[in-house]
Amino acid sequence: MLEKVDLKKKLVKEDYKKVIDELRMHVGALQRQAKDLNIPVSIVFEGWKAAGKGTLINELIQSLDPRGVQVFAIHEPNDEESVRPYFWRFWTKIPSKGRMAIFDRSWYQRVLVEKVEKQATEKELHHAYHEIPSFERQLVDEGMIVIKFFLHISRKEQKERLEKLSASEATAWRVTEEDWTHHRDYDAYRCAVEEMMEKTDSDFAPWLIVEATDKRFATVKILTAVAQALEARITKVSSKKESTLLPSIASAVSLVDLKSLKSSLLSEVDLSVTVSADEYQEKLKMYQKRIREIEYIIYKKKMPVLVVLEGWDAAGKGGAIRRLAQNMDPRGYTVIPISAPNDEELNHHYLWRFWRAMPKQGHIAIFDRSWYGRVLVERVEGYCTEGEWRRAYREMNEMEEQWIHYGGTIVKLWLHIDQDEQQRRFTERLSNPDKQWKITGEDWRNREKWAQYEEAIDEMFFRTSTTYAPWTIVEANCKSYARLKVLKTIIKDVEKFLQ
Amino acid sequence: MLEKVDLKKKLVKEDYKKVIDELRMHVGALQRQAKDLNIPVSIVFEGWKAAGKGTLINELIQSLDPRGVQVFAIHEPNDEESVRPYFWRFWTKIPSKGRMAIFDRSWYQRVLVEKVEKQATEKELHHAYHEIPSFERQLVDEGMIVIKFFLHISRKEQKERLEKLSASEATAWRVTEEDWTHHRDYDAYRCAVEEMMEKTDSDFAPWLIVEATDKRFATVKILTAVAQALEARITKVSSKKESTLLPSIASAVSLVDLKSLKSSLLSEVDLSVTVSADEYQEKLKMYQKRIREIEYIIYKKKMPVLVVLEGWDAAGKGGAIRRLAQNMDPRGYTVIPISAPNDEELNHHYLWRFWRAMPKQGHIAIFDRSWYGRVLVERVEGYCTEGEWRRAYREMNEMEEQWIHYGGTIVKLWLHIDQDEQQRRFTERLSNPDKQWKITGEDWRNREKWAQYEEAIDEMFFRTSTTYAPWTIVEANCKSYARLKVLKTIIKDVEKFLQ
Repeated sequence: MLEKVDLKKKLVKEDYKKVIDELRMHVGALQRQAKDLNIPVSIVFEGWKAAGKGTLINELIQSLDPRGVQVFAIHEPNDEESVRPYFWRFWTKIPSKGRMAIFDRSWYQRVLVEKVEKQATEKELHHAYHEIPSFERQLVDEGMIVIKFFLHISRKEQKERLEKLSASEATAWRVTEEDWTHHRDYDAYRCAVEEMMEKTDSDFAPWLIVEATDKRFATVKILTAVAQALEARITKVSSKKESTLLPSIASAVSLVDLKSLKSSLLSEVDLSVTVSADEYQEKLKMYQKRIREIEYIIYKKKMPVLVVLEGWDAAGKGGAIRRLAQNMDPRGYTVIPISAPNDEELNHHYLWRFWRAMPKQGHIAIFDRSWYGRVLVERVEGYCTEGEWRRAYREMNEMEEQWIHYGGTIVKLWLHIDQDEQQRRFTERLSNPDKQWKITGEDWRNREKWAQYEEAIDEMFFRTSTTYAPWTIVEANCKSYARLKVLKTIIKDVEKFLQ
Repeated sequence: MLEKVDLKKKLVKEDYKKVIDELRMHVGALQRQAKDLNIPVSIVFEGWKAAGKGTLINELIQSLDPRGVQVFAIHEPNDEESVRPYFWRFWTKIPSKGRMAIFDRSWYQRVLVEKVEKQATEKELHHAYHEIPSFERQLVDEGMIVIKFFLHISRKEQKERLEKLSASEATAWRVTEEDWTHHRDYDAYRCAVEEMMEKTDSDFAPWLIVEATDKRFATVKILTAVAQALEARITKVSSKKESTLLPSIASAVSLVDLKSLKSSLLSEVDLSVTVSADEYQEKLKMYQKRIREIEYIIYKKKMPVLVVLEGWDAAGKGGAIRRLAQNMDPRGYTVIPISAPNDEELNHHYLWRFWRAMPKQGHIAIFDRSWYGRVLVERVEGYCTEGEWRRAYREMNEMEEQWIHYGGTIVKLWLHIDQDEQQRRFTERLSNPDKQWKITGEDWRNREKWAQYEEAIDEMFFRTSTTYAPWTIVEANCKSYARLKVLKTIIKDVEKFLQ
């Protein structure tokens, strides 16, 4: 999940000043309301060494009434803690109703530091991955809000920060040998963090990655997230017992809805990439030949493959699928176009039709759109409830994990174009009698919700780009480039899987 | 969990006739309502060979409109199924909205037959225990009712039935070599069943054990359970969208609330057991000496022990604890009396105060009442919601499992007396000025709810008597006998743990 995070995000001082005071006031007001409503809140800060946990916790606390909040810095267990089960020290620290606990490091230390430094046994790690979700679920079931931040910086940024701290006499003492060990082990920690997020991201206690390169950006993101979480619960609880909401709070979120804060990782994609007609023809042939070979190998080896194509309307999914299948043996693959569910499908669990379509061993199923509709169109258009799409991330991950455990593989591709390109293609379709059928009123409506779709796509990437089934973004403003990348990605992913 | 089941339960023909017709009508009416309300239902039948799955499924179907129900007999996977992931064949069979699917054997075959016969790999079994709860949770989250029956008969009963079938030419063909293999492996299967129940019993899809020795009893129990499950959901859904309930259905449960059906396993306990004064004195000394030795050993070995004493009011918990602690080194143990939670405790998660009281390594904590209050007094007196106490079984099992994984052990004792004995002790307390303080108005109120408590105790035994932390029932009409058994059980359980 980390590789999809854009660490260049920042907030210029001017924008920061515009929002910070009001945001702080809101968070403070929400804290008071949560207190009145007896809602307990636990906030976890995990992240890289030198990512700024201390500083950012301070920024958060400044907005809060200190009488209602307690910060726990989690170090090695003390004498009392080391003679009791691991979770004892966290159970004894959970906040009472209406109070807030902030954890500077937390119960995740076992699967991070203790794992990488080999302080925990295999068995302990195994149990930890049962105990952590169980702990969080138990707290949430009893009414607690659990917010989990992971402060993310790059290895390079970490090094620069540690060097800067070491260089000054006033701060050199803060850099320990341990910090440098962590830095050297950045990659091992990164694997541990990825695993941790995969195994402990849930609808009741989701992870939020904070791009922590820029302190102002991180501060606003953290305050906003806390405000949103509190506000969502307060609205829910209050509507039950006569609302006591301050009218102004409803606008807290829109207030910080700055372009720079919301910038999608899609906006980072370089859509200018292109390919010459000659190169396209040459490579296309080469890739198609290899795809056919691969089709034969997986058939012999009885390995099944799922290919998922998602993307904006008019991003070129159909064209890419045609190029993909052009040279394949039709007995070895099926293309499954997914549109709105029919009556029978609506009468079943939303995953039912996808389970039914699972290919046999040795076969390839190519999904033109897929189960991800749940967290894209169904989420944005309101065809399912918030609870349903939030739950869906986990449900889809579970389905894909079963598939991997069974011995299959999945290639997930997002075809990305920008709004201008989409507009151009829509217009072209309208003026071309052969393509008019491709465009409907719905397409235009979807366009108006571009920003909402962007948000949904971002969250989908984050919550479903797992180590066993990662997403690949395909730059698709140039159709030829996109087609080649689709084929190349499938070849690469399946070859990795065949090894 | 199985060892706590009373397989002698039966229903005499007369009682059966009194209820069966009306019960069938109710189940039929509820099915029609579930159809109108678009509620899908899956019913799983697992159980021993020759336990009567086929017969009992037929009994159930007779009450149902056959157009709304489909029975799936699950055998070895066929050609289409064996080339796809394990759950494919179950996903493709789930009922659509308003329909009912009955599974004669089910997705549990992997952890039963495939496990015992070593057809599934370790890895597959490991995954299965993730995939099964995930499958059921996904279905329930989308609105399905999932009912799971396990038909239980003894090894002896199984043998008799197989022999009887083999003896008659008309039925001999039904008994296969496989059936006899299962019979020989009864104990191995029993272990697999215990593990299965521990790992897959949940608040969203709980197991229900059906004592299947007597067909009439089993039929009524199954029909009642189906009626209750449907009725609970229909009431919930209907109250949202204007009730369309038949007035008579609300009485379906009370209708079959026959003494014989509800008979508690507590009623099977032989309360006449007693011990002579001499034997008592002699053994008490011996046990107390051994307890002190054990206290020292666990201190040296740094092993922590939890002792949980639960029981009816006036069952003699206090006296037993005094005898237990009499000779112990006070530095090695703590007695923790649990009464109604105080303000600070009420302001926290209900398990918080028990986590806080967890003993250190090498120490013993003796709980005079415990976290089980959640599913006893809090359930019966309505101090918590149904959702809360239903969830609690799992939460408490998880807490105890963490304790075991940490290297601790738990001894759980239920002190059992009958109503007459309790009455006698209450009266005695009233007439004894030194003991009057022990009895409150609440005690008398609790007496009126004896049957409700019995039901709660039964369910507690079933859902929390795990392989790692089983319950022991202590016959306590004779105080001396009870005290000895408490000490003996603790010695035995801790010695097993020390090995």
